[in-house]
Amino acid sequence: MMPSDCSGTHSGTADGAASAPGGYRAVARCDALGAAPYSEENDRLFRPYLSAAHRATRARIAGWMQEAGMNTRVDAAGNSVGRYEGLKPDAPALLIGSHLDTVRDAGRYDGTLGVVLGIEVVAHYAARGVRFPFALEVIGFGDEEGSRFPVSMLTSRAVAGLLQEAPVGMHDAAGVSLQAALAEEGLLLEHMPKAARRPEDYVAYLEAHIEQGPVLEAENRAVGVVTAIAAQYRFRVSIQGVAGHAGTIPMALRQDALAAAAEAVLAVESVGRAGPPDLVATVGQLNVSPGVPNVVPGHVVFSIDVRAGEAAVRNAAAEEIRTALEALAARRNVTLEMTLQQDLPATPCDASLTRLLGDAVYTITGEAARRMVSGAGHDAMVLAALAPVCMLFIRCAGGISHNPAEAVDAADVEQAFQVMTRFIEEFAGHYLDSKERPV
Amino acid sequence: MMPSDCSGTHSGTADGAASAPGGYRAVARCDALGAAPYSEENDRLFRPYLSAAHRATRARIAGWMQEAGMNTRVDAAGNSVGRYEGLKPDAPALLIGSHLDTVRDAGRYDGTLGVVLGIEVVAHYAARGVRFPFALEVIGFGDEEGSRFPVSMLTSRAVAGLLQEAPVGMHDAAGVSLQAALAEEGLLLEHMPKAARRPEDYVAYLEAHIEQGPVLEAENRAVGVVTAIAAQYRFRVSIQGVAGHAGTIPMALRQDALAAAAEAVLAVESVGRAGPPDLVATVGQLNVSPGVPNVVPGHVVFSIDVRAGEAAVRNAAAEEIRTALEALAARRNVTLEMTLQQDLPATPCDASLTRLLGDAVYTITGEAARRMVSGAGHDAMVLAALAPVCMLFIRCAGGISHNPAEAVDAADVEQAFQVMTRFIEEFAGHYLDSKERPV
Repeated sequence: MMPSDCSGTHSGTADGAASAPGGYRAVARCDALGAAPYSEENDRLFRPYLSAAHRATRARIAGWMQEAGMNTRVDAAGNSVGRYEGLKPDAPALLIGSHLDTVRDAGRYDGTLGVVLGIEVVAHYAARGVRFPFALEVIGFGDEEGSRFPVSMLTSRAVAGLLQEAPVGMHDAAGVSLQAALAEEGLLLEHMPKAARRPEDYVAYLEAHIEQGPVLEAENRAVGVVTAIAAQYRFRVSIQGVAGHAGTIPMALRQDALAAAAEAVLAVESVGRAGPPDLVATVGQLNVSPGVPNVVPGHVVFSIDVRAGEAAVRNAAAEEIRTALEALAARRNVTLEMTLQQDLPATPCDASLTRLLGDAVYTITGEAARRMVSGAGHDAMVLAALAPVCMLFIRCAGGISHNPAEAVDAADVEQAFQVMTRFIEEFAGHYLDSKERPV
Repeated sequence: MMPSDCSGTHSGTADGAASAPGGYRAVARCDALGAAPYSEENDRLFRPYLSAAHRATRARIAGWMQEAGMNTRVDAAGNSVGRYEGLKPDAPALLIGSHLDTVRDAGRYDGTLGVVLGIEVVAHYAARGVRFPFALEVIGFGDEEGSRFPVSMLTSRAVAGLLQEAPVGMHDAAGVSLQAALAEEGLLLEHMPKAARRPEDYVAYLEAHIEQGPVLEAENRAVGVVTAIAAQYRFRVSIQGVAGHAGTIPMALRQDALAAAAEAVLAVESVGRAGPPDLVATVGQLNVSPGVPNVVPGHVVFSIDVRAGEAAVRNAAAEEIRTALEALAARRNVTLEMTLQQDLPATPCDASLTRLLGDAVYTITGEAARRMVSGAGHDAMVLAALAPVCMLFIRCAGGISHNPAEAVDAADVEQAFQVMTRFIEEFAGHYLDSKERPV
């Protein structure tokens, strides 16, 4: 079903597949934002929240939004917002977005691609005079990565109404307070919670993002549909054995903390491998004391990161790991401490929206959509507090991200663009049905 | 058999077992040398080569040597040497010694105990007017630990004639050259090789040393006899996998360098455990890159230390480890490099001397001697180039060494003292036999 008063012809597949606007232009725009003045550094991309590079980026994004027929503003948290009205003014909006900030030495597509794709979608309809029974809003969040201050997703939390109070006492690595950084942009710290929107203002949130993993590439797919953002546990494990001279302590008398930790690393891997495909378990950090070649290690500290689409799967894996570690510690006569450091709940994407997005993928690609769990966090997990959310993943080369080698195939991004427009049109039909309005 | 012209009665067991001289005094003397001015630091023991603390220690040692009836000198390498003549002047000597330098934050017995026990042995005979067909020399080596300059056993190498040329270009952590440090003591760098003695000057070298390991304690023995100083290999292993996001790389697509290294650590341990009791294999150092909790490790570098009494045992173990590591690297699709960094040959102790020393242990303790390989290096391994060597190990608490908690039981040291005197007397008998001199 189509919106009621289409003023131009359009379909997800017929228009703009190889024209400059759409996915190809989105990639070119990410590339254009990949260097100074849109980066704080000359030879690599670093665009922290509320930096001069972020300011320059907001200005460029606002220009593109205006070209695409949107009214623009910067909200109280420093997010770039553009609005394309629906059939009636002040209708609730379908929000499309991602983040504009980057890690240090970043790739050009992580976050930014989802924002400029949102602009392309609006440009596509505006060029054809198409309006929907809902507005389209595009948002470029200022801070997803924790690129400057020691928290991440501050700005999407502000929009989702999760910042009850202005976060005080936060400073960047150079000692600049969040308050001072906001003031540089003409924003007041105490007004930051006013970026909050009301649930009745939004009908849905759609985020397109590079996969940052190797699954789509391994399966030769351009795009995938995210069913949930994984639940995550992070543990700190300390193993205390007994240090001693590597030459004089017989093997049978050792309480080697590293050998115990090695067994633990393999237990973590083994539990991860035995679970469903979306379960991952990782030891990424491991430090040995005293850490010299001729001393049997006395103490090892390491991290465990466990994620799965469902908390129950993650929790069961963590329990299995704990049991294995306690058993090996007892057998090896070393002391084990396993401390929970972080517990992020799973964020299921909205089932209906995700089904619609999957249908759009099928229509555009001719293949059933790859449904997948996102192991990485995204603004969508925060926005779920405000509106039903869905996410589209785009294949990236080698699964590489947070690295200048991050790369996408523009043809994949064009497919993502077509999926997004197809999705919006289908959504519009369902939206009208659900409102029981005449078509 | 006894030396020909004993001028006092004596036997290994009858005299001095509980008197102040002997093992008990040796322990008291180590304790007396455990603080300033015999340490460079006030609150912990640190006696580096050619330091003021070393100078004070040499003076104190020389005093005790003179009290024990010895002529004393400092040799061209800064070693403390005392000589107690035999029946005829200028006879070759039985050399007894160990080292006087310590690591930082050291225990009081590592090295020093073997020197002061040598002095006790001479004092014992001098007090009774006993002389042997060989002289007794006691030596306190200046540098076994590499306590100041970046090499170890410099001074025993000088004595053994292994320093062909003066070592030039060597500096301590403060930038002081070896030349300047020697000059402070009135010694000339270019004369250092003149500390070399001739093989014909020595009939044997005997070193008593704390075990620095837990074997004697575990078996409830005061002393043990060293059959060899272990052959040692040190390897550096590099494993290159592929780093990636801990949330987004499915378990099945990982090339986790740390999981591979963990398997390697367990392979090293397993090879060590499967070998004879004197084989030890250790991973003491292991560094993970990038080493953060949410990234699958891409690169790990670790050390492997392998030691055994016989090079053949060590070599076979190293080959087994290499085979296991290459297999797991291939299976896990990671790149392995295993580079030999250090290859120290085994130093077998002299079989006849070691048998005699074992006999003495049996006579004194009533139990067959525990024969053991020294996994740690000692001056004896260097002295083997000059004379037949043997070593007596003394139990230390918990096997702890290089630590202020290092401790010995004075009764054990007294047993060691008695074993040493018994050994010398037996040796004297055999020595006369071998020379076919009349008794």
